[in-house]
Amino acid sequence: MAFSVRRFLFGKPLPTWRAAHERLPKILALPVFASDAMSSVAYATQEILVVLVAAGGYALRLSVPISLVVIGLLWMVITSYRRTIQAYPRGGGTYIVSKDNLGVGWGLIAAASILIDYTLTVAVSISAGVAAIISAFPDLAPEKVLLAVMFIAMIALANLRGVKESGALFAIPTYLFIISFVVMIGVGVTRALSGSLPAAPTPIVETTHALGLVLILRAFASGCTAMTGTEAVADGVAAFKPPEAKNAATTLVLMGTILSVLFIGISWLAFHMGVVPSEHTGGHETVVSMVARGIFGRTWFYFTIQGATMAILVLAANTSFADFPRLSYFLSRDRFMPRQFGNIGDRLVFSNGIIVLSLMAAVLVIAFKAEVSKLIPLYAVGVFLAFTLSQAGMFVRSRRLKEKGLGWLVSLVGSILTGIVTIIQAYTKFWGGAGIVVVLILLLVIMFRKINQHYMQMAEQLRLPLDQDTIELPEMRNTVIVLVSGIHNGILPALQYAKSLSPDCRGVYIETEAESTPLVTERWEKYGQGIPLVILESPYRSVIQPIMKYLNEVKEERARHIVTVVLPEFVPAKWWHQILHGQSGLQLKYALLFRRDIVVANIRYYLEK
Amino acid sequence: MAFSVRRFLFGKPLPTWRAAHERLPKILALPVFASDAMSSVAYATQEILVVLVAAGGYALRLSVPISLVVIGLLWMVITSYRRTIQAYPRGGGTYIVSKDNLGVGWGLIAAASILIDYTLTVAVSISAGVAAIISAFPDLAPEKVLLAVMFIAMIALANLRGVKESGALFAIPTYLFIISFVVMIGVGVTRALSGSLPAAPTPIVETTHALGLVLILRAFASGCTAMTGTEAVADGVAAFKPPEAKNAATTLVLMGTILSVLFIGISWLAFHMGVVPSEHTGGHETVVSMVARGIFGRTWFYFTIQGATMAILVLAANTSFADFPRLSYFLSRDRFMPRQFGNIGDRLVFSNGIIVLSLMAAVLVIAFKAEVSKLIPLYAVGVFLAFTLSQAGMFVRSRRLKEKGLGWLVSLVGSILTGIVTIIQAYTKFWGGAGIVVVLILLLVIMFRKINQHYMQMAEQLRLPLDQDTIELPEMRNTVIVLVSGIHNGILPALQYAKSLSPDCRGVYIETEAESTPLVTERWEKYGQGIPLVILESPYRSVIQPIMKYLNEVKEERARHIVTVVLPEFVPAKWWHQILHGQSGLQLKYALLFRRDIVVANIRYYLEK
Repeated sequence: MAFSVRRFLFGKPLPTWRAAHERLPKILALPVFASDAMSSVAYATQEILVVLVAAGGYALRLSVPISLVVIGLLWMVITSYRRTIQAYPRGGGTYIVSKDNLGVGWGLIAAASILIDYTLTVAVSISAGVAAIISAFPDLAPEKVLLAVMFIAMIALANLRGVKESGALFAIPTYLFIISFVVMIGVGVTRALSGSLPAAPTPIVETTHALGLVLILRAFASGCTAMTGTEAVADGVAAFKPPEAKNAATTLVLMGTILSVLFIGISWLAFHMGVVPSEHTGGHETVVSMVARGIFGRTWFYFTIQGATMAILVLAANTSFADFPRLSYFLSRDRFMPRQFGNIGDRLVFSNGIIVLSLMAAVLVIAFKAEVSKLIPLYAVGVFLAFTLSQAGMFVRSRRLKEKGLGWLVSLVGSILTGIVTIIQAYTKFWGGAGIVVVLILLLVIMFRKINQHYMQMAEQLRLPLDQDTIELPEMRNTVIVLVSGIHNGILPALQYAKSLSPDCRGVYIETEAESTPLVTERWEKYGQGIPLVILESPYRSVIQPIMKYLNEVKEERARHIVTVVLPEFVPAKWWHQILHGQSGLQLKYALLFRRDIVVANIRYYLEK
Repeated sequence: MAFSVRRFLFGKPLPTWRAAHERLPKILALPVFASDAMSSVAYATQEILVVLVAAGGYALRLSVPISLVVIGLLWMVITSYRRTIQAYPRGGGTYIVSKDNLGVGWGLIAAASILIDYTLTVAVSISAGVAAIISAFPDLAPEKVLLAVMFIAMIALANLRGVKESGALFAIPTYLFIISFVVMIGVGVTRALSGSLPAAPTPIVETTHALGLVLILRAFASGCTAMTGTEAVADGVAAFKPPEAKNAATTLVLMGTILSVLFIGISWLAFHMGVVPSEHTGGHETVVSMVARGIFGRTWFYFTIQGATMAILVLAANTSFADFPRLSYFLSRDRFMPRQFGNIGDRLVFSNGIIVLSLMAAVLVIAFKAEVSKLIPLYAVGVFLAFTLSQAGMFVRSRRLKEKGLGWLVSLVGSILTGIVTIIQAYTKFWGGAGIVVVLILLLVIMFRKINQHYMQMAEQLRLPLDQDTIELPEMRNTVIVLVSGIHNGILPALQYAKSLSPDCRGVYIETEAESTPLVTERWEKYGQGIPLVILESPYRSVIQPIMKYLNEVKEERARHIVTVVLPEFVPAKWWHQILHGQSGLQLKYALLFRRDIVVANIRYYLEK
C-alpha cells in the first residue's frame, strides 16, 4: 500500500544508467542559470523603499542612486566571476573555490553560508511570488502563508519526481518575464519623458527616523538582494555547450545587462511615480504591481506582468532545489554531512536534500508569515560572505599560480568590496535577523567538523590491516540459550534450531509460580530433546531481571564464547490476536537490545487460525 | 530512569509470598462491603426529583411513595441474596452464579453487565462526590470535570500501589457518614414534627410534561440507583470471619436497614422542605446539601456532612477498583478476556484491570461533563440485569438440587420483579443512554466469545501428543547468509559467527554501483574466511528487493533447511552518530520480520569512539 502511494506520487523507479547530462546552448542556458538572479528585480527596489520610507517621502528619491551603486557592485562581482569561469571550466562553486584556495575551514564557512542562502532563496522567492499574486487578487491575502507552503510542497514534489533543469521548461517563463518587463519599462519611460505619465509630487508619509548614514546603509544592504543568484552561472559552467568557458562568460554578461536595465528601470519608475511601499500603508500590493498598474491599469498586460513575476520567482526557488541537494551531496561525499544526503532516490534525485530544504523553507515561511520584508534581513549576509570568500579564493589562486596581468587586482578589490558589504549587512541588520544567520553559520561549521570527525574515526576503526595477505580468524564458540515459557508444540522448532546451532545448548525457564514447575520439568524430560533445563526463580514475577542476571553469569563463566538467545515467538493468524498475548517477549527483545555480545534469534511459530 | 519514576509512583516491588488475606469482623466488613450501596443515598433521592420536577411542583411529593417502593424491592433482593450467601460461602459473584446455573452464555451476559456497572459506579460516584464538594464551595463549579478526573487518577494510583481493602481505611469515613446522616435525619424529622422546621408550600416550577405513567416509571427507575452495590456482600463472603455465611447474612441485613432509613429519611425531608433539584434552577447544589443546609445552615456540621458524603463516594468508587480487576481476572482465567488481565504487577495487584477501568471511567466523566443526572440513565440497566440473572440462577439451582422449603419462590419472585425493573429501565431510558448499554453488553459478549475461540484454537495447535513417550525431532539443517555492505573490520565478527552456526554459509553483496564490485571481490578473497560470496545486481539501487528475491531462490532450492540471515550492525559510541548512518539495516530488519521461516541474527560491532 505504502508502495503504491509512493509510486503514484513520485512515479516509477528509474534505473541508474538513465542518469545523463544535457548540454545547453546560450539561449537556453540564460533562463536556466540567470532566472534566480533576474527574479530578484521583483523585490529589490521595494526593499530599498521599505527602509527609506521611515525617513519620509523625500528620502524615497535616494532609491535611484542606491540602485546605481548596487549595479556598480554587481558589475564588479560579474567581472570577478568571469575569472572564476576561466579558472574552473568544470564548475567553480564557492565551496570548491574556497576550499581549494583558502583551506577547508573557509570552504566550510562558504558552504554553510550558501546552504542558508539556498534555503532563504526558496522562502523569499516563494513569498515574493505569492505577493505578486496577492497584488493582483487582494482577496487571497488571508491565505498568504497557506499559498506559500503549497507552492513549496508542489516544487518539492516535482523535484522528488525528478524535474530536469531542462532549458525548455525555464525558457518560456523567463523570456516572458524579460520581455514583459522590458516593455513595461520602455512604455513607462517613454510616457514619462513625453509627459503623459507626469512626475508625482513627493509623497507625504509619516517620518519615524532621521535620514542618517545607518539608514542609508541599511537601504543599500536591502538593495543588494538584487545580486543574489549571480554566482549560478559560474557554478554551472560544465552544463554549457563547448567552448564552455566562453559561452558561460558571455551569458554572464548578458544576464548582468538585463538585470541592470530592469533594476534601474523599476527603481526610476517607482521614484518618478511616487510609489510608497504598501508595508507603510498597510496594503498588500508590491511596488512592481503599483508601477505596472500605474502605467497600464488593470489590463491584460498588467496581469501578464504579475503572472510572469510569479513564474520566474517559482523558477528561482526551483533552482535552489537543484543546488541545495547537490551541495549537500558534495559535503556528504567529503564526509561533512550525513551520508544520507548522498542517497540517490528511485527517481535519480538526492531525495533527502530536497526534503530537508523544503521543510526548512516551509518553517521559515510560516515563522515569518511569508512576508518578504521580514525575511530580507536574513538573506544577504550569507550571499555576500560567499561572494567575499569566492573572490578571496580567486585572489589567492592567482598569487599562488603567479598569473600574469591584473586579474588578481580584480579579485582582490572585489573581495574587499563585497567583504565590506558583508560587514554592512551584518551590522545594519544584526538584530533584524542577520545575527541569527551569523550564529547559524558558526553552528553549521561546528556540525560539519563534528560529523567529519565521527566518519574519520569510524573509518579508522573499520580499516582492515591491508598489508597482511589474509586474516584467519579463530573458531568462535557459541553458547545457545532457549527461553522456555512452557512446554508445547510452539517451542519444538526453537529446540531443533538451537541444537543445529551448537552442541552447547540449554533451556531456561522462569519460575513465577512454584506450583507449575514440576509439570514443566516432567514434560521437559519427554520433549526437551536432551537439552539441559535451567530453572530460574523469580520471586518478584519479573521475567527480565532473572534472565539478565543469568546471562551475566554465563558470560562470566564462558568469557570467550558468544551467547545466542533463541526466543520462541508466536505469530497469530489475525492481527488482533496479537493483543491477546502478553508483551513479555517484546520487552525481553528490547532489554536484550542493550546487551553487548548477545545475539538474539527469534524462531517464529505460525498459528494457522 | 523509567524504572525510578515507576518506583517513586508505585513503590517497591513486592514478592509473591506477601499476597495474604485478611479476615474481617462484621464491624469492619460493613464499611468494606456496604459503602458502595449506602453511598447511593447521596444521589438517589435527587435523581427521582430530577425526573418528577418536569411535571411540576405537585409531582415532587411522589418521591416519598416511589422511595418506599424502591425500599420494598431492596428487601426483596436482600432476602434473595441471603440465599446466595448460604449457597456460595466462598463468594457468589453474579458471574459465577449465572455461569454455574444458567450456562456460560448467561454468565457472560452477567459479566458484561457487571463490568459496565463497575465502570459507571466509578463515574457516578466520583461525579456525585465532586457535586458534594461544589455544593459546599460553589466557586469550584467550573473545575468540575478536572476535579473528577483528578480523583479518578488518585484512586487509580493508590490501587496500583496496592491499597488493601483494609477495614480501618474504610471504617472511619463510613461510620462518619452513617452517624452524620442519622443525626441529620433525626434532627430534621424532630424539628419538622415539633414545627420548628415548617412544611414548605408546594414549590412553583415550570411544567414541561404531563404526569403520566412513563414519567413515574422513569422516576422509579432513577430511584432504583439506590440499590446499586447490594450484591457486594454476597461477592465477598470469603473475607468474613467464620462462620462466614452467618456473619455475611447479618451484615447484609444491617446494611439494608441503614440504607432504608437514610434513603426514606432524605426523601421525606426533601419533600417536607420543598426542595427543587438545582438541575431545574440552574444551580450547582445537591439535594442532600440543600436539606442539610436547611436544617443546620452553613455550620461546621453541614460541612461535615458534605465531607462525609464525598468520602464515602470515593470509597464506593474504590470498591470498583478492587472488583473490576478481580472479575477481569476471573474472565481472563476462563479465557474470555485477554490474558494480560491476569498479570500481577510489582505490587501484587491486577494492574491492567486498574488502568483500563480508570481510563474508561475518565472518558465517561469527560463525555458526560461529570453530571450525575446525565450518567444515571446508563447506570441501572446493567445492575438490574445482573440482579435478575443472579436470582434466576439461584432459582434454577434450587430446582436442580430439589431444595426443600419455599426458598426457590423467593428467588423466582425476586428474579421476575428485578427482570421487570430491568425492562422498565431499558424502556424508559432507552434513548437517554440505556440503549447504548444494551448494545455494549451484546458487543462485549461477542468479544468474550471471539477471544475464547482464539485461545481454544491456539491451545489446540500447541498441544503436544501427550500419549507419546518422547518426541525425537530430526536434525535441522541451517543455511546461513551474511549480508555484506562492504569489506571492513566490522563484518569480521559476523563472518566468524556465521561459520560457527553452520558449514553452509555464504556472503551476499548488493551491487548498486558496478564500479566498486572488483574491489569488493578482491578484498573478499583475502578476508572472506573462505566463505563463498554471492553478488546481486541492483539496477534500481534498492537493497531490499534483490535480497528478498534471492531468499526466495534459496528457500526453493533448500526446502528443508532453515535460513538464518546474519546482519552485521554498527553500534556507534554516541547516540547522535546513529543519525549519520543509513537506515537500510533497519529497513531490512523490518522487511525480514514479515518473512516466514527466516531467522534474523544481528551481530553488533561496537565503535569505541
